[in-house]
Amino acid sequence: MEVLTGGVCAAKGFYASGAEAGIKYQNRKDMALIYSETPCVCAGTFTSNVVKAAPVLWDKKIVENAPYAQAVIVNSGIANACTGREGMECCEKTAAAAARALNVPADSVLIGSTGVIGMQIPVERIEAGIEKLAAGKAHSTEAAQSAAEAIMTTDTVDKQAAVRFEMGGKTVTMGGMCKGSGMIHPNMCTMLAFVTCDIAISKELLQKAVSESIVDSFNMISVDGDTSTNDTFLFLANGQAGNPELTEENADYEIFKEALHYINTTLARKMAGDGEGATALFETRVVGARNKEEARTLSKSVICSSLTKAAIFGHDANFGRILCALGYAGVDFDPERVDLYFQGKNDKIHIYGDGVACDYSEEEATKILSEPEVTVLVDMHQGDAEATAWGCDLSYEYVKINADYRS
Amino acid sequence: MEVLTGGVCAAKGFYASGAEAGIKYQNRKDMALIYSETPCVCAGTFTSNVVKAAPVLWDKKIVENAPYAQAVIVNSGIANACTGREGMECCEKTAAAAARALNVPADSVLIGSTGVIGMQIPVERIEAGIEKLAAGKAHSTEAAQSAAEAIMTTDTVDKQAAVRFEMGGKTVTMGGMCKGSGMIHPNMCTMLAFVTCDIAISKELLQKAVSESIVDSFNMISVDGDTSTNDTFLFLANGQAGNPELTEENADYEIFKEALHYINTTLARKMAGDGEGATALFETRVVGARNKEEARTLSKSVICSSLTKAAIFGHDANFGRILCALGYAGVDFDPERVDLYFQGKNDKIHIYGDGVACDYSEEEATKILSEPEVTVLVDMHQGDAEATAWGCDLSYEYVKINADYRS
Repeated sequence: MEVLTGGVCAAKGFYASGAEAGIKYQNRKDMALIYSETPCVCAGTFTSNVVKAAPVLWDKKIVENAPYAQAVIVNSGIANACTGREGMECCEKTAAAAARALNVPADSVLIGSTGVIGMQIPVERIEAGIEKLAAGKAHSTEAAQSAAEAIMTTDTVDKQAAVRFEMGGKTVTMGGMCKGSGMIHPNMCTMLAFVTCDIAISKELLQKAVSESIVDSFNMISVDGDTSTNDTFLFLANGQAGNPELTEENADYEIFKEALHYINTTLARKMAGDGEGATALFETRVVGARNKEEARTLSKSVICSSLTKAAIFGHDANFGRILCALGYAGVDFDPERVDLYFQGKNDKIHIYGDGVACDYSEEEATKILSEPEVTVLVDMHQGDAEATAWGCDLSYEYVKINADYRS
Repeated sequence: MEVLTGGVCAAKGFYASGAEAGIKYQNRKDMALIYSETPCVCAGTFTSNVVKAAPVLWDKKIVENAPYAQAVIVNSGIANACTGREGMECCEKTAAAAARALNVPADSVLIGSTGVIGMQIPVERIEAGIEKLAAGKAHSTEAAQSAAEAIMTTDTVDKQAAVRFEMGGKTVTMGGMCKGSGMIHPNMCTMLAFVTCDIAISKELLQKAVSESIVDSFNMISVDGDTSTNDTFLFLANGQAGNPELTEENADYEIFKEALHYINTTLARKMAGDGEGATALFETRVVGARNKEEARTLSKSVICSSLTKAAIFGHDANFGRILCALGYAGVDFDPERVDLYFQGKNDKIHIYGDGVACDYSEEEATKILSEPEVTVLVDMHQGDAEATAWGCDLSYEYVKINADYRS
């Protein structure tokens, strides 16, 4: 497996573009296009929030019923959530405009929106934006970059990943992009993430692989515990790699799943590390749990704890908050058997064991906690299962961003 | 029912005091005593966190097995949690010292601790502090005030409440105190709260009333979603009112429960409004829910949402975040049937209905959201059940307090 650049344009036959459409207040790119020159098998997962944005309802229908997908239109700035009938009409008009501009069926057009909830999108700006996107689309690293920038809201960096691998005698390429960075606590999916691939694969197997991969990637991150109304993950596969169509869970499927896991965890980590106001990626790895489910629950509880997140921001080895977060996760364990470690790029120190604080150096702990990626390692000594969750610290900047977001 | 001052000293026969024992870094009061001149029937509820502080384990044993309780010793500054065998020994020595100083059995001494997790308490300072507390104890409003101040950590104000009511031809008085103000997301109980009463009541009935009252008072508040290792609620009843012992759920029991509910919700609201860094009490009242449980879940989801809390801090009518938090609460509903209102002391405005934003004045919304107590009223239109939850806004100060807490 070879790591590449090129994001959603890395795979054969995929085009992208980004454009300014005047949806955001500032003059910033706010619309993106992903387009495949040939029809795609498509899989997706969506928010579990009862309040679902209009584009989520639109996409679910396409993923479940349409014969194929061929384009994705994304806007940032307005989420098109809590917008009633007018919001659904906006999706219909968006798909119709994209269908005309790209010469594809309207029911092959997927839609993603992100931004303020409760406002209506000025649909004529979307329609004009689609003209620009169609005219500017290209199969290039620059085009993928432009699309990845256009979907950003409070993100500070664009988030892309791509890999290449061999399968059935052919070279297959997969690439994706996503955006965070607030209201991030995905449940069944993430805010907005799009992965393209030139693999030939059946729809059933693709959906299975996607649904499984989400659980240990996007569903293991949290910025603020708020599960968005717009969470959307979409995977488009156009088959241009020319491999024999993947239809069963054989050795090739395992290769594909490994590549998918790499792309998804890479994007998920980028999203967590660029959480609103974040100064550090905060990783919690739980080992020695009784089962996978408990390992996931425990690791997620730690990265979701506001108090622990604030301590990480303050570079403070306040390990009691970590134990406290493990303790209210809903998993039974004996606190006296737990071991806690802080882990940096080169150092690892034992913080807690045998029911009491270890005799560690506060100075060394502060040094580790000042790195841009901080890992807490928890050994439960209950079994063999493990899981990793990713979050970020809680800073003044998070509060600032979210106290002022609309203004 | 008459509202009084006097806190834990309002009821007959109860004494209190506060003292400096050198547990906290600064020269601040950090130990409190509650003492009854006669033995008390006692009930309690404790944290559901798997990681339980030593005093929680100690108190559970006393509440369940000891014939009666007569004193409570509280320290702030160090939580005595994650302290292993040494932590339990500290409780034993604390109870022994209080038994000597107050001439009561060691197994009638309850203990509460709050502060940093993972540090050992210098027990000789506790022993010296107990001498001061015993010497200074008094049955007065000032003594109750001193005790209420001594249990504060990051609290900015002390929290007390007291009421008087008639029962069985006698006057019964009940009073309490509590402290917050971080790691507040009680589950089965709150951080530290103590209520005294001169009622004569059976232990079984007292525990039943306490357990029921907690559900709609302390369990409905949250500051940061972190369920503490030390949550403790204790109720001491010494029978000095002289009423016929309350042993069954008759009309007198209803009067008692009403008084208890008043004390508990008053203390709980004070705790939420004085959450770490809070500039406002943030109340969410859900009406028209299908059942009580769903009403509780929905209202709590809103007051726990970091994004909503940050919007309240910014006085920003970002109602989409409220709908979003309702949507991920785990309760099924149709977003198009929900009505949202912002409510201030004198004003109430309709923000969202029929699936879209109402035509409200942003200026008026900002005015309401700038008051010290902000209420969101949610009508689900699904049934008759309702519940209220209390939280606070999320401010820079919360981050500051918790990034620096130990230093």
